Amino acid sequence: MAKRIVGSTPKKDGFRMPGEFEPQSRIYMIWPKRPDNWRDNAYPAQRAYAKVAQAVSEFTPVTMLADFDQFEKAKDMLSDKIKVVEMSSDDAWCRDCGPSFLVNDKGELRACDWEFNAWGGYVDGLYSPWDADDAIAEKICDLEGADSYRTKGFVLEGGSIHVDGEGTVLTTKMCLMSDGRNPHMEQGEIEDMLCEYLNCEKVLWLEDGIDPDETNGHVDDVACFVRPGEVACIYTEDEKSPFYEVAQANYKALCNMSDAKGRRLKVHKVCVPRENVLLTGADTIVKVSGSAPRHDGDLCIASYLNFLITNDGVVVPQYGDENDELAIEQIKGIFPDKKVVGVKTIEVVYGGGNIHCITQQVPKI
Amino acid sequence: MAKRIVGSTPKKDGFRMPGEFEPQSRIYMIWPKRPDNWRDNAYPAQRAYAKVAQAVSEFTPVTMLADFDQFEKAKDMLSDKIKVVEMSSDDAWCRDCGPSFLVNDKGELRACDWEFNAWGGYVDGLYSPWDADDAIAEKICDLEGADSYRTKGFVLEGGSIHVDGEGTVLTTKMCLMSDGRNPHMEQGEIEDMLCEYLNCEKVLWLEDGIDPDETNGHVDDVACFVRPGEVACIYTEDEKSPFYEVAQANYKALCNMSDAKGRRLKVHKVCVPRENVLLTGADTIVKVSGSAPRHDGDLCIASYLNFLITNDGVVVPQYGDENDELAIEQIKGIFPDKKVVGVKTIEVVYGGGNIHCITQQVPKI
Repeated sequence: MAKRIVGSTPKKDGFRMPGEFEPQSRIYMIWPKRPDNWRDNAYPAQRAYAKVAQAVSEFTPVTMLADFDQFEKAKDMLSDKIKVVEMSSDDAWCRDCGPSFLVNDKGELRACDWEFNAWGGYVDGLYSPWDADDAIAEKICDLEGADSYRTKGFVLEGGSIHVDGEGTVLTTKMCLMSDGRNPHMEQGEIEDMLCEYLNCEKVLWLEDGIDPDETNGHVDDVACFVRPGEVACIYTEDEKSPFYEVAQANYKALCNMSDAKGRRLKVHKVCVPRENVLLTGADTIVKVSGSAPRHDGDLCIASYLNFLITNDGVVVPQYGDENDELAIEQIKGIFPDKKVVGVKTIEVVYGGGNIHCITQQVPKI
Repeated sequence: MAKRIVGSTPKKDGFRMPGEFEPQSRIYMIWPKRPDNWRDNAYPAQRAYAKVAQAVSEFTPVTMLADFDQFEKAKDMLSDKIKVVEMSSDDAWCRDCGPSFLVNDKGELRACDWEFNAWGGYVDGLYSPWDADDAIAEKICDLEGADSYRTKGFVLEGGSIHVDGEGTVLTTKMCLMSDGRNPHMEQGEIEDMLCEYLNCEKVLWLEDGIDPDETNGHVDDVACFVRPGEVACIYTEDEKSPFYEVAQANYKALCNMSDAKGRRLKVHKVCVPRENVLLTGADTIVKVSGSAPRHDGDLCIASYLNFLITNDGVVVPQYGDENDELAIEQIKGIFPDKKVVGVKTIEVVYGGGNIHCITQQVPKI
């Protein structure tokens, strides 16, 4: 049985988090169902998740975790290629509540099991309770037979960090320094924690993300490592874009950063959608206490950067926007050896995230 | 993903159910928790299940399936050797609601996913609803990656059959011909079904089991194959034993039976407890509608025959009875090459079964 490791850290034990572009054995996802987050009792979102799972499964095996009540529906809506396993959850964001897997040089698998508090706990979290989500990482580790490091008292979501697998972490102050995460810790203490648990030497801090409200500015909407020494970053020159200022600031910041190995970063531009995505059909989202309310016209965080790199493929959000094709072409240029496929995920965006947010990779060992 | 096979049968596809004495890769169990079946909110039963799991794990890896609400408690109470996986259930009898695994000559694994109705459905079943239990077999098949044959319209529990792996099924009329199972089918039709799905040629019918009320006389309390051509059977000459008549009748019947290969069965005797086990502490069992009520003084079905054969071991029930040691010695004599270990399971008996009832093996392929 997978164990919780007490009294040590990944760095002490020689485990590191690999880059997303390193080989993967499996992708985990969580089946959506919350009627207070998803439109129309989550059915349109479920179709979108099924399409994402199908696209990912062309490159990497996929396990979909589904609540007891949703299990048969998930099986019905997913193709035979997708493995469905019963697991309780509060919502459906495996990037954020799932484990951050680690490897060592001997080909062993472990994971960080970060404390999860629904993106801010009682300060500005999105729902309560979140205990089922917080237990997901441990259960995935059990399924994978991976011992884990539980960071009791340290809150982190997988979507708030990216690593290059060679000693560098990329994150945002907007999220990691927010009041709903670890307000008892100074920036330097958070750096120490990231470096100790991801086995890194350098933390690259961006100021802001483009999603201040829901994720408090997760980095995975704005920038990611595409290989060691190279990052992709959202970029627009359209001052009317709600993401203009953050995109410009982050692009410039990244161009002036160097990684843990001392390499000046090469920064690839990824466009943003031409049109804003605004929530519609909010009246089909159930209102309950304990969950953040949703309104027609809410700005949805539609970023092409929230793609998943998975073995020989990259699975990229599409919105029916004029820039969809440009985004695909740019990402093809960044990954000339991978197959780049688009999946229309506007229903996932309505729920607050995208392809990267709803997936979590297990490295191949 | 494991599939449901439609339009064929195990016999047509060359799959057979192996004997329990054949090599196994894993044992599944389900964590008990029903406060309306188990005494004291199931805590004593949980300790007993943990002991059984620990004993089995000396010979074969064990997966314990636990409800969301019970997951952490199960992990706390089980040793690190036991794998815990979240899975919803109605009660905790993996023999009866779990899959009956099948193998073929190519080393492939499949399973029968029998319809389960809580031992009699609305005729004389023990609780309602039972949909979570009925879904267990499919989910275990998913975990094992085993395609399955779902017998829609045919009800069976794993504890109501034993096979020799060479074409013979052993069962009881009391159970398989009961009104709560398949009353629309004649005995010959049931034989055809068993032979087609277990890939057998001959059904050996005992008349009765010793548990007419709860399981309607499951065979796994009274007799089992110990190897091809040989069975064990409960036996007593004590006319005051509540099991005397059934034991005598079954022993004599088995001595006159031959298997599918034409071998006259060799029948080994296994004693019964000297003292009756009667339920006490029924006042700590919660009374709810939809569940069979429990009373102090209810006769509990304490049979040493309800052991599990698992690789190099046999795990045998013990009751603190004068005959405990004799049972162990008899079973050692039957399995001279295996390690025979006893586990005190009186709390499992209070809930209506024993070691065989709460375990389900996966054959090694």
